[in-house]
Amino acid sequence: MRIGIDAFGGDNAPEAVILGVKEALNSIESNIVLYGDESTIVRLLTKHEVNLQKIEIVHTTQIVSGEDKPVMAVKKKKDSSMIKGLIDLRKKELDAFLSAGNTGALLAGGLLKVGRIKGIDRPALVSVYPTNKGISVLADAGANAECKARNLKEFSIMGSLYAKEILQIENPKVGLVNIGDEKGKGTALVKEAYEEIEKLDNINFIGNVEARDISFGQVDVIVCDGFTGNIILKLSEGVVKSLSDMFKNVFMKNVFTKISALAVKSGLSDIKKKLDYSEYGGAPLLGVKELIVKAHGSSNPKAFKNAIIYAEKALKNDLIGKIEKNL
Amino acid sequence: MRIGIDAFGGDNAPEAVILGVKEALNSIESNIVLYGDESTIVRLLTKHEVNLQKIEIVHTTQIVSGEDKPVMAVKKKKDSSMIKGLIDLRKKELDAFLSAGNTGALLAGGLLKVGRIKGIDRPALVSVYPTNKGISVLADAGANAECKARNLKEFSIMGSLYAKEILQIENPKVGLVNIGDEKGKGTALVKEAYEEIEKLDNINFIGNVEARDISFGQVDVIVCDGFTGNIILKLSEGVVKSLSDMFKNVFMKNVFTKISALAVKSGLSDIKKKLDYSEYGGAPLLGVKELIVKAHGSSNPKAFKNAIIYAEKALKNDLIGKIEKNL
Repeated sequence: MRIGIDAFGGDNAPEAVILGVKEALNSIESNIVLYGDESTIVRLLTKHEVNLQKIEIVHTTQIVSGEDKPVMAVKKKKDSSMIKGLIDLRKKELDAFLSAGNTGALLAGGLLKVGRIKGIDRPALVSVYPTNKGISVLADAGANAECKARNLKEFSIMGSLYAKEILQIENPKVGLVNIGDEKGKGTALVKEAYEEIEKLDNINFIGNVEARDISFGQVDVIVCDGFTGNIILKLSEGVVKSLSDMFKNVFMKNVFTKISALAVKSGLSDIKKKLDYSEYGGAPLLGVKELIVKAHGSSNPKAFKNAIIYAEKALKNDLIGKIEKNL
Repeated sequence: MRIGIDAFGGDNAPEAVILGVKEALNSIESNIVLYGDESTIVRLLTKHEVNLQKIEIVHTTQIVSGEDKPVMAVKKKKDSSMIKGLIDLRKKELDAFLSAGNTGALLAGGLLKVGRIKGIDRPALVSVYPTNKGISVLADAGANAECKARNLKEFSIMGSLYAKEILQIENPKVGLVNIGDEKGKGTALVKEAYEEIEKLDNINFIGNVEARDISFGQVDVIVCDGFTGNIILKLSEGVVKSLSDMFKNVFMKNVFTKISALAVKSGLSDIKKKLDYSEYGGAPLLGVKELIVKAHGSSNPKAFKNAIIYAEKALKNDLIGKIEKNL
């Protein structure tokens, strides 16, 4: 298998990408194809003494930035580390492609260069969401800021398949994010989506889910538009981090609190690990014909490593084939 | 001053309302006017031995439920504990009205029975949002699920005035909730709102704010539509609660962790207090001509007590007059 990686995508690229690749190499069988400026990549591979046996480089001259308009990026930056990789994915020169870059551009590139699975209007970024109980699935986690009811319906189907096939959750409970439990609450979009999802007979739709119940794992599949999904992911990340900071201050207060910190250290680091996005690797962009994995924009080497391992696992699991078959 | 209270609004009404009134009586000067079924109210006042000196009852025969459609509730339930109170507020028989009931109905009642301040299209629920740094203001916290750019602009003005006049924050930083820092990100709504807010010269607009930065107090005024605002408030509440549960389990693990819990107990309860919505009282519905305060739907007696104290404080501060003058 060949996994392509956008070496210039994400806040910490390209160094964090190269370090992530180095760390992943021992855990994977795939070959890695790095997309980006060759001389920079070679310099970093050398600097970090990366084993080159399974590594190839495809030299590209452009970079898609966070400010680029998605469709413009796809059209004008065909020789970028992101778009060139997607083109090669379409040509089957790669089995999967991974990027931590501009989410909108990755979606647009996936749509325009790789193509949709039949029956899907808009692909969704399907992310895991750690809860008190375990792991839920969030769809869409930020690919489509603006959605139609049809899109939310498709997200609910793909999210449910993902929970079942990849996370092995039996009969996953699907909930529509809304501002009230009752049917008929919320915006025109969620009201219409509720009606559409309710009609599906191949998913276990339990109705609306309020934001306060999400982190308790009330549902296994959290369905929402990408604007809301992005807020849910990033707000959770922020609240966990700010609360951890407050806790840290409490423990640093005096000698007694410092000693007490030792007693709970392992328990707290278990929680931290459980909630750390970088432990979970990337999020697949489901609904396109090939495997595209989005890593968190602020991915560190560990996050890249886990995203690469995740991509290989998803390939071995035939994630895209299963989605296609079940739609 | 006379503060009207919907005795039958909220998940724990009417008992939590009566207990909240009892607790508030020592801290306020105002008279309390309770709206709802007289015999039930009298029974609860008697049961809890509430001092009746400053209490009046207005008997009503209907209740607005969580399932009621807002405008229908206003039209068909004129003799409900919520709508009758709003009618009396308009007639100046009350100086303020407080309810923990159906937010949509309270907004519709505020619009149709009390009326808007000139120049305001949609009133906003303006809530405090505790952060790492202190307190921010969230507008809209859930009154308007569906918004136009104009509404977000007005929320930014009212939120800023609230932060300045009531929370005494000098030159409060105003941020628009979005899925990216850069101008031009997000939905059509937020893009248009950005343009509108940018033109204002009486607020300190710093641009977009990402959800992950909200709980660190990056901005003093968090501007968003009511759907997003409701998600932000309730998700934060849920994440804090689920994280606290996880921490609790860590501390309960063995005798050493239990002892260590003692050392950090006061620090942790400071955090808990800081993040506890019931400490902050209610959220005013700004943009209507009189003071309407919304208490959290799941308010307990302490939350009602603080909402009542808050309402009196807002009256003394001439909150509505200041908003009206500055618009």
